[in-house]
Amino acid sequence: MKKKKKQLLLPEGFTAAGIAAGIKKKKKDMALIVSDVPAQSAGVFTTNQIKAAPVKWDIQVVERNHVRAIIINSGNANACTGMQGMTDTAATATLTAGKLGTEAHEIFVCSTGTIGKPLPMEKISRGIPLLAKKLSPNGAMNAAEAIMTTDLVTKTTTQEIEIGGKPVRITCLAKGSGMIEPNMATMLAFILTDAAIEKHALQCALRAATDTSFNRITVDGDQSTNDSVIALANGKAGNTEILNGSEEWNTFFQAVENILFELAMMIVKDGEGATRVVTVQVSGAASNGEANKAARAVANSMLNKTAWAGIRPNWGRVMDAIGYSSAQVKEEKVDIDYDDVPAVRSGLAAASAEKDLINAVSKDEFAIHINLNLGDGHAVVYTCSCTEEYVRINVE
Amino acid sequence: MKKKKKQLLLPEGFTAAGIAAGIKKKKKDMALIVSDVPAQSAGVFTTNQIKAAPVKWDIQVVERNHVRAIIINSGNANACTGMQGMTDTAATATLTAGKLGTEAHEIFVCSTGTIGKPLPMEKISRGIPLLAKKLSPNGAMNAAEAIMTTDLVTKTTTQEIEIGGKPVRITCLAKGSGMIEPNMATMLAFILTDAAIEKHALQCALRAATDTSFNRITVDGDQSTNDSVIALANGKAGNTEILNGSEEWNTFFQAVENILFELAMMIVKDGEGATRVVTVQVSGAASNGEANKAARAVANSMLNKTAWAGIRPNWGRVMDAIGYSSAQVKEEKVDIDYDDVPAVRSGLAAASAEKDLINAVSKDEFAIHINLNLGDGHAVVYTCSCTEEYVRINVE
Repeated sequence: MKKKKKQLLLPEGFTAAGIAAGIKKKKKDMALIVSDVPAQSAGVFTTNQIKAAPVKWDIQVVERNHVRAIIINSGNANACTGMQGMTDTAATATLTAGKLGTEAHEIFVCSTGTIGKPLPMEKISRGIPLLAKKLSPNGAMNAAEAIMTTDLVTKTTTQEIEIGGKPVRITCLAKGSGMIEPNMATMLAFILTDAAIEKHALQCALRAATDTSFNRITVDGDQSTNDSVIALANGKAGNTEILNGSEEWNTFFQAVENILFELAMMIVKDGEGATRVVTVQVSGAASNGEANKAARAVANSMLNKTAWAGIRPNWGRVMDAIGYSSAQVKEEKVDIDYDDVPAVRSGLAAASAEKDLINAVSKDEFAIHINLNLGDGHAVVYTCSCTEEYVRINVE
Repeated sequence: MKKKKKQLLLPEGFTAAGIAAGIKKKKKDMALIVSDVPAQSAGVFTTNQIKAAPVKWDIQVVERNHVRAIIINSGNANACTGMQGMTDTAATATLTAGKLGTEAHEIFVCSTGTIGKPLPMEKISRGIPLLAKKLSPNGAMNAAEAIMTTDLVTKTTTQEIEIGGKPVRITCLAKGSGMIEPNMATMLAFILTDAAIEKHALQCALRAATDTSFNRITVDGDQSTNDSVIALANGKAGNTEILNGSEEWNTFFQAVENILFELAMMIVKDGEGATRVVTVQVSGAASNGEANKAARAVANSMLNKTAWAGIRPNWGRVMDAIGYSSAQVKEEKVDIDYDDVPAVRSGLAAASAEKDLINAVSKDEFAIHINLNLGDGHAVVYTCSCTEEYVRINVE
């Protein structure tokens, strides 16, 4: 008997498809996600000053009121491609709109892959009608596969919640393996729901949930030209429209936040060459901003990431990183714990046995708690260890 | 016939020694550098907020007028060691001063190695009289070996110049293999000269020369708790004292700058796991500060460093890094060249053949020229490629 493929439920009124259009060798490389009816949309995009053509396009699309679909290709980022890139993105949207009987400005376009090469429009043009033909309520896993680049696993999740007595589904498909690998560009996430929600309320929920999930993870500290998080809400659940600040909004936001956090952790775990996931938690900073700077310095330090790969509770490298971060630090006030094992007290080695520290950092997931003991600022960042495999992937 | 050891000439009135005191296994780990007569001194120290005990000590010593010696140990950084660390540093200086018949506050103390472990004072105490006994005008290479940690080669140079008709010698000993590896802490450099030079003039020369040499290199973007660059000038050359801003100062400064630059390039070449040295030159930025930010973003990006190891002229990763740097960038204005081969023109792929680009980045040393075409700001940073070897060294 053939092994049954993992299924991913789409919300009411959504269909999806994923195919191999020949952009990558033999692998699926084009996906289409469609809402039967016009959907509200929201988007959070890369802050990199150099944005790929599809990101520039999507920033315009998200300003409009209704959207029908997202067309995605992997294998080519359509970044640093100038006017040709913009023309190709517009053509992709137009071709897709033609097949769906709608307008180009109702189509989000996403690309991920190599920078600086023109989009292979012949393959894209042949792929779009094939995708339209294969659209199905059961097509989500094919779409999730088609958006992968160096990812080792698909990243999807779905959840049902109740809003005003109506069942509402939220489904998310994401990709990303380095927080960025610009050559194979980046992180994409698509949040689909049948909830009815006012546009501004959707944007607020997406922005806030992105800040506590995708914006809290780091694999190599870089940020790509193509990062995009896009939400579509088509109202098919029949709930009373969710308004910003309402109790229903809060229920919806909590669900989106949980879902994005789950996806974000999938991305860190699938970090290129990662062997363990590390939570870096800073408290007692002069401000939340300073806590964030200290946490990111620790989380992005290659010396820390390699120490964690080697199962070394090397707190000297943690002290060094917070010291060169721009957060205010007083050496004699710093406390550090690996999970619940004290490593540093008042800037000095704690009395813990070396084997207890080694034990703490040998787990697949552990936390480093850093208390600067200066104020109330706190922050948390999720990162991963770095092995020779990371270098091998990026050298080759 | 026994192979003759490489010699390193010391300036007039300097002696040095290096021994194995048992801090490291079997390798030399203590060095002493002495001036027969009190010398003017200058120093540039780590800006890390967490400074090792000897750095805190040296910041006091450099404020004084005359210095007699530098005592160095490798294998232990004496960092994050609190009051005990300060006491141990003071004791090291006192013991050394006792052997030289001078005062503790005339002795610089430097340590490099593991963070957070108390200095093994019994070994240090036994080592100091041995060092004092071995002091010799021919002892510089032994001292250069004793300050190494993960360095694969000693880093030394000497030069004779003429100041006001008198021959003046400048000799430099340095160590460093990561711009930092906090666990095996860091970069040290000692500049010794028999020039007579006014204290402020020496400090100005050292600061300016450090800015264009050691502060221009990066291996992994970190900065240690122990980085120190110290200069001693004992006046034994008999020249008229060099005053700040004079023609003689300029001659002296040029020589120091050349020497420090030579040493800085030795450190980059010996970068942990480095296979090639890359000059990242940014011009046309809105300001020099912005040029520096863009250059450092490119030079510190793991994705660029691994691409260079893999001989890949991956200009997309360069575009991405300048885009997320905080320097102002307009995609459509950016030009990039690998040596003299155009890679990007006006933000788009240049017409160069792929084989010419690959040829440019396959050299042991090459330059990336980035023109932002926005203003007059420029900066240069020297960095190295990153191979799996870097990770291996830091994991183990």
